[in-house]
Amino acid sequence: MSTAPLRNDLLLHALLREKTARTPVWIMRQAGRYLPEYRETRARAGSFIQLMSTPELACEVTLQPVNRFPLDAAILFSDILTIPAAMGLGLHFVEGEGPVFERPVRDAATVTKLGVPDPEQDLRYVMDAIRLIRGELAGRVPLMGFAGSPWTLACYMVEGGASKEFALVKGLLYREPATLHKLLDLLARSVALYLNAQIAAGAQALMLFDTWGGVLTGAAYREFSLHYMSTIVSQLKRESAGRRVPVILFTKGGGAWLEAMSESGGDALGVDWTQDLSEARRRVGDKVALQGNLDPVALYAPPERIREEVGKVLASFGHGSGHVFNLGHGITPGVKPEHAAAMIAAVQELSPAYHR
Amino acid sequence: MSTAPLRNDLLLHALLREKTARTPVWIMRQAGRYLPEYRETRARAGSFIQLMSTPELACEVTLQPVNRFPLDAAILFSDILTIPAAMGLGLHFVEGEGPVFERPVRDAATVTKLGVPDPEQDLRYVMDAIRLIRGELAGRVPLMGFAGSPWTLACYMVEGGASKEFALVKGLLYREPATLHKLLDLLARSVALYLNAQIAAGAQALMLFDTWGGVLTGAAYREFSLHYMSTIVSQLKRESAGRRVPVILFTKGGGAWLEAMSESGGDALGVDWTQDLSEARRRVGDKVALQGNLDPVALYAPPERIREEVGKVLASFGHGSGHVFNLGHGITPGVKPEHAAAMIAAVQELSPAYHR
Repeated sequence: MSTAPLRNDLLLHALLREKTARTPVWIMRQAGRYLPEYRETRARAGSFIQLMSTPELACEVTLQPVNRFPLDAAILFSDILTIPAAMGLGLHFVEGEGPVFERPVRDAATVTKLGVPDPEQDLRYVMDAIRLIRGELAGRVPLMGFAGSPWTLACYMVEGGASKEFALVKGLLYREPATLHKLLDLLARSVALYLNAQIAAGAQALMLFDTWGGVLTGAAYREFSLHYMSTIVSQLKRESAGRRVPVILFTKGGGAWLEAMSESGGDALGVDWTQDLSEARRRVGDKVALQGNLDPVALYAPPERIREEVGKVLASFGHGSGHVFNLGHGITPGVKPEHAAAMIAAVQELSPAYHR
Repeated sequence: MSTAPLRNDLLLHALLREKTARTPVWIMRQAGRYLPEYRETRARAGSFIQLMSTPELACEVTLQPVNRFPLDAAILFSDILTIPAAMGLGLHFVEGEGPVFERPVRDAATVTKLGVPDPEQDLRYVMDAIRLIRGELAGRVPLMGFAGSPWTLACYMVEGGASKEFALVKGLLYREPATLHKLLDLLARSVALYLNAQIAAGAQALMLFDTWGGVLTGAAYREFSLHYMSTIVSQLKRESAGRRVPVILFTKGGGAWLEAMSESGGDALGVDWTQDLSEARRRVGDKVALQGNLDPVALYAPPERIREEVGKVLASFGHGSGHVFNLGHGITPGVKPEHAAAMIAAVQELSPAYHR
């Protein structure tokens, strides 16, 4: 791992609600299809799986947005489904349909057969990518690692792919909660090991993506999603080369549960664009930092309009530390790179006023 | 129109927060594919459009769930897209994909050419269906009419069909808000006329479905969706044969904005299953009644488990009037009719304890 000192640590300070001169900014899915250089590497790789499982290529695309834009963080290029893939479910990606598992998990007998992957064995390509990226970054910005939440992984594993109604996994929840808990417990142990291995390999901040927590009732969210995220957070080492490794929890559509999330041990919460940051901040108090939350579709507007919308997000969070600027969800493939640049420039220009 | 006195008016009382002996119950999409008799009529009709635009067939399927279950309301069988269809956008339904408009609306010039449909001319089949249904119901339960919210109709009209990211309509919102406002204003006038015609034809309660309000930011929701629903509500006659016609507003994923919604002039708010009713009730106070909010997927559980979940929803709302039991979204095609029956029975058996 690179031992170069971190030259831009705005992200780490902001996630721990420490004073910074401006608001740091990065973009969910910043290494993605909206960048022509990404599409070029992706074409060269042949497939998405090849791209994410070849450390040199994953490193290459991780660096692309950081080389193009003055971003305050790099995020490992990978996928939340690496863990179920390592469990042998047969992951592949169908163009236009997303991830598909050949062997979905739908009963207690199948759950019993699953094992916890060994990160340095079964997921070594991820750890190798992190080590490579840290070397290449050489301290320019921190590198974030990530994983999917147990509930979100279970959604894909039980449904066998993306879903609209989640009838299979929620059917399991209502009919056979013990089986689902067994699966979630296994996933929580796997994710904790995986994230600790990412820290050991060089990840300087972590994010747990709970893409589908928002399809649950409040009670089910606490029992089947938040509980396991909280367990994971409590098992993380959270220290890398003497610095604290902050953890961000993000439940898309989870705005109703920010109070409960703020008690879960994470340092920061991701907030989607449907929540006003001012209101979110009032609700979580000084327990956690907040990350977000420009509507990704705002990046289709002309640059001057993007600047206005960035201004509204910054004003909504208001004065003081503890805000990491981001979109409220991943950047979409149709966005022009210049529009992402306009967003980043606006954060850099407009945010210092909130940190005086 | 039938002038038979209404023998079961639980729904109307509950929507106006008046005392009832138990909690009334109906099911969003209760006339639908989970019922074998619906599938039979649907097959006979040949197409969904034929089914909804033939008053005798629409009447037949509207009555089916009311004949099978002891429901406390009938809801007109129709579609939220009748208005854009009457505007000449060329609506058709693609199996497995949902509604598609042949001529989507994407610029100011096209908006200018659209006119407000005359309900008794261009949408006469809807009014005829209402008159027929009222005759057939003969006062057993009230008949609900409905419409899509202007924002939700605009989503379909601009996108040309269903969408995941709503990049086109939200693109218009960020780039050309004046054009979008012009379209929404036209839609609000059309919906108000349409709902007043439904009242005149015999609708005894109304619901505005804002299926896609939840994809907006809070500020955009208030400006582009709630504002127009509020305008519509203020223009409704809200009286039928001497009784008040209550209006329900439902924004799926709109839980963050219940306070603002409760100020919009509607009598009741639909609440999806992600919100706790106790919390929702605390937030809206005694301004409006609440409708909901069992997770539709709970109906895949065995009947005894469904009963438990119904109990939780009733307990969450708690004691007193002002609750209409429903799912948090439409019933799904895979649910067994006996499971819907178990839900209704549980509401009838467990709810009186909350009204003493």
